[in-house]
Amino acid sequence: MSRRKRLGKGEEISTGLHGFNGMLVALLMGVFSSAGDWYWWLLLPVCLGGAATTFLSSSLAPVLGHWDLPVSVFPFNTVIVLYLACTGTSNPYFPNYPAQPPGAPASTNLTQLHVPQLLQGVVLGVGQIFACGTLGPSLLILGSVFLFSPILAVYALLGSGISTMAGLSMSVQHTFLYSGLSGFNGALGCMAVGVFYIFSWRTHLLSIANALLSAYTDIALSNLLGVVGLPASSWAATLTGTLVLLLTGKNLKEYRIPLEKVTS
Amino acid sequence: MSRRKRLGKGEEISTGLHGFNGMLVALLMGVFSSAGDWYWWLLLPVCLGGAATTFLSSSLAPVLGHWDLPVSVFPFNTVIVLYLACTGTSNPYFPNYPAQPPGAPASTNLTQLHVPQLLQGVVLGVGQIFACGTLGPSLLILGSVFLFSPILAVYALLGSGISTMAGLSMSVQHTFLYSGLSGFNGALGCMAVGVFYIFSWRTHLLSIANALLSAYTDIALSNLLGVVGLPASSWAATLTGTLVLLLTGKNLKEYRIPLEKVTS
Amino acid sequence: MSRRKRLGKGEEISTGLHGFNGMLVALLMGVFSSAGDWYWWLLLPVCLGGAATTFLSSSLAPVLGHWDLPVSVFPFNTVIVLYLACTGTSNPYFPNYPAQPPGAPASTNLTQLHVPQLLQGVVLGVGQIFACGTLGPSLLILGSVFLFSPILAVYALLGSGISTMAGLSMSVQHTFLYSGLSGFNGALGCMAVGVFYIFSWRTHLLSIANALLSAYTDIALSNLLGVVGLPASSWAATLTGTLVLLLTGKNLKEYRIPLEKVTS
Repeated sequence: MSRRKRLGKGEEISTGLHGFNGMLVALLMGVFSSAGDWYWWLLLPVCLGGAATTFLSSSLAPVLGHWDLPVSVFPFNTVIVLYLACTGTSNPYFPNYPAQPPGAPASTNLTQLHVPQLLQGVVLGVGQIFACGTLGPSLLILGSVFLFSPILAVYALLGSGISTMAGLSMSVQHTFLYSGLSGFNGALGCMAVGVFYIFSWRTHLLSIANALLSAYTDIALSNLLGVVGLPASSWAATLTGTLVLLLTGKNLKEYRIPLEKVTS
Repeated sequence: MSRRKRLGKGEEISTGLHGFNGMLVALLMGVFSSAGDWYWWLLLPVCLGGAATTFLSSSLAPVLGHWDLPVSVFPFNTVIVLYLACTGTSNPYFPNYPAQPPGAPASTNLTQLHVPQLLQGVVLGVGQIFACGTLGPSLLILGSVFLFSPILAVYALLGSGISTMAGLSMSVQHTFLYSGLSGFNGALGCMAVGVFYIFSWRTHLLSIANALLSAYTDIALSNLLGVVGLPASSWAATLTGTLVLLLTGKNLKEYRIPLEKVTS
Repeated sequence: MSRRKRLGKGEEISTGLHGFNGMLVALLMGVFSSAGDWYWWLLLPVCLGGAATTFLSSSLAPVLGHWDLPVSVFPFNTVIVLYLACTGTSNPYFPNYPAQPPGAPASTNLTQLHVPQLLQGVVLGVGQIFACGTLGPSLLILGSVFLFSPILAVYALLGSGISTMAGLSMSVQHTFLYSGLSGFNGALGCMAVGVFYIFSWRTHLLSIANALLSAYTDIALSNLLGVVGLPASSWAATLTGTLVLLLTGKNLKEYRIPLEKVTS
C-alpha cells in the first residue's frame, strides 16, 4: 500500500512488479501440461491466469499492506493450484501431469545416495525457482542473481543446500533431491530474508532459520497436496517469508527495510 | 462495522441481514439429507446451525469490517461444510448424500451435448442459489429479482451463462451443466458486482470478469472438496466477490458503493 | 500486542507465555511417535519444533493483536500438524501412528454403550489437553486447575461433558468417547470463555454455546484431516475460542477482560 502510494503507477509497471506473477503462472502451466510440445491452446489459460494474478495482486495489496507486507507470489501460488485443481490429469483439453508427494515408499530409499547428483541438485534448486530442471540454465540464473547482488546468490545456494539436507533428514524420494525440487523453497526462503533485511550476523542466522523452516513446511505441504495430485509450488517459502517479515522482536525490527525502499 | 454503527439493531434485523445465512443453512441441510422426506429430527441441526451462523456473523464482522467488507455468506458456507463433514454419508442419525466432483471421467463426455437442456441449465443456475433445481420455481426467483432490480436479473442470467460456458470449457460432467450447479457461482459472482458497484461500462466488464473467475474457482474447489465428498457450495463466489470489493484501482474505487449505503 | 508493550520481556517469559506452545509440541511428538520408548532422536524435531513455535508466536502476534486477540495455541497446532504431515507413518527416522477419523463405520456402534467408561471419558477429556489418557494423572490435572481457579475446573468438566454428548449425538466411535478424545476440545472451548470473560450468567451461557460449537467443529475437522491420517489436535477449540473473543455484541463486550489484564 505504502509502496503503491509512493511509486507512480508507471514506475511500478516498469520495475516489473506487475509481471512476475503472470510469468510464473505461464511457466508452470507449460511445465505441468501433458498435452505435448507447442500446444497452442495453452495460450488461453495462460492469458486468463495472468489476468487473474493481476486481479489477485490488486485485491490482496490492501489486506497485506496493512502490516507492511508485500503481495509477493501469493497470486501465482493461488492461481496455479486452482488451475491444476480445475483441469486435473484427465481433462480432454488441458491435461496435466500429476504431482507426486515427496514422502518415500520404503523401497526407493534402500538404494545408495549419489553424492555428485546431490550437489548438482543444490544448484538445480536455484533454477527450479523458474521451473528449470537442467544444469546449464540453472547456472545462468545463478550468475544473473550474482550480477544483481552477490550476497543474494550466496543465500540462494546456501538456502538450497540447507533445504536439500532437510529433505535428506526426512528421507524424501531421491528424485526430489536430484532434481532440485526439494531445494528451491529453501533457496527462496533464504533469499527473502536477504532482500528485506539489512545484512548482519543476526539476519544471517535468521535467513538460515527461515530456509530450514521453509524446507520442512514444503515437505509437509507437498505430502498433503500430493494426496490430491497437486504440487505445493512455492507456498512454503511464501508463507514463511511472510511470517519472517512479521517478526516484531526489537533486535530484528531495526534491520527490516521498509517495503517502499526495497530495491527490486 | 460501519454499517452496524449507522443502522440501528432493529433496522438491521428488519432488513433481513441476520436471517439469510441461517435460512440457507437450513435449506442446504434439507437438500443434502438422505434420511427421507419430512425427517423431523433435522430441526435440531437446523436450529444449532442457524445459531452458529449468527455467532459467526457477529465474530467475522469486526475482522472483515476493517477493510469495509461485508460478512455476506461466509457463515453459511462455513457452517454447511462443517455440518456435512461432521455427519458424513453413513451417520445413523443425519445421513447425507455425498457430493460428486464435477471433473468428468472420460466416458460420460462422449455423449452429445443437448443444447435446450444446456439453456435450461442457465436458468436453473439462478434457482440453484436457493438450492432449487426445477424450472418453474427458478423462473419465479428470476422474476422476483427482476422486480427488485432489472439490472440484477440480467446480471444473474449473464453470470449463469458465462459460468456454464466455463464449465463447458473444462468439460465438467453434463449433469452439472444441466442442473444449473455449474451456473450458480457465476451468477452470484456477477450479481455481487452489480450490488456493490455503480452501473457503468467499467463495472460491467468487472462483473463479467468476476463471473468467469468465480466459475473456474468453483470447478477447482468442487474438485478438491469432492475428493472427501463435500460440496463447494458458494465458497467460490464468496471469495472472489470479497476480492473484487478489495480492488484498489483508482478507476474502480470511485464506483464502489460504501457498505452502509448498499440497498439490501 | 498491547500486552507485549505493557508486560516487560522478562515478566512475559517468567509467566510461561513463551513456553507452553513448545511444551505441547514436544508432548504430542512423543505421543504420536511409533518408534518405541526412549527414542532419543526425537529430541531433534522437539528442539526444532519448539523453536518454530516461538518464531510463529512472534509473527502472529501483530496480526492477531490488531483485534486484541491472543496467539494462544495457534503455533502449537500449526507446528504439530506440519510435523505429522512431514514425517508420516512410514518415515524411516521419525515414524508416527496414524490418526483415525472419529466418524464411525456402522458395525462398531451396534455394541452397547458402557456408561461408567463414558463418565470416565469426561474426566479423561480434561487430561487429554496435555495428551494424557489415564485416569490418575487426569484427576491430578483437574485438581491443579481447581487450585488455580475453582470456576475453571467446573468449566473444564462441564465442557468435556457437553463435548462428549455432542460426540454421542454424532455417534462417533466409542473409543473416542472412552479415551476423552472427543471431550478435550469442548473442555478447552468452555475454559476459554472462563479465562477471557468476567463470570456472569450471560458468559456462562456463552461458555456452554462455545463448548458445543467447539465439539462439533472438532468432529468435522477430525473427519476431514483423518482422511490424510492427521489429527485435528486442538484446532477446533482454538478457532472457536478466537471467534468468541471477536464477538462485538454490546451486552457481551463489557464482560470481556482486556488481553493485558488476563491472569495467566
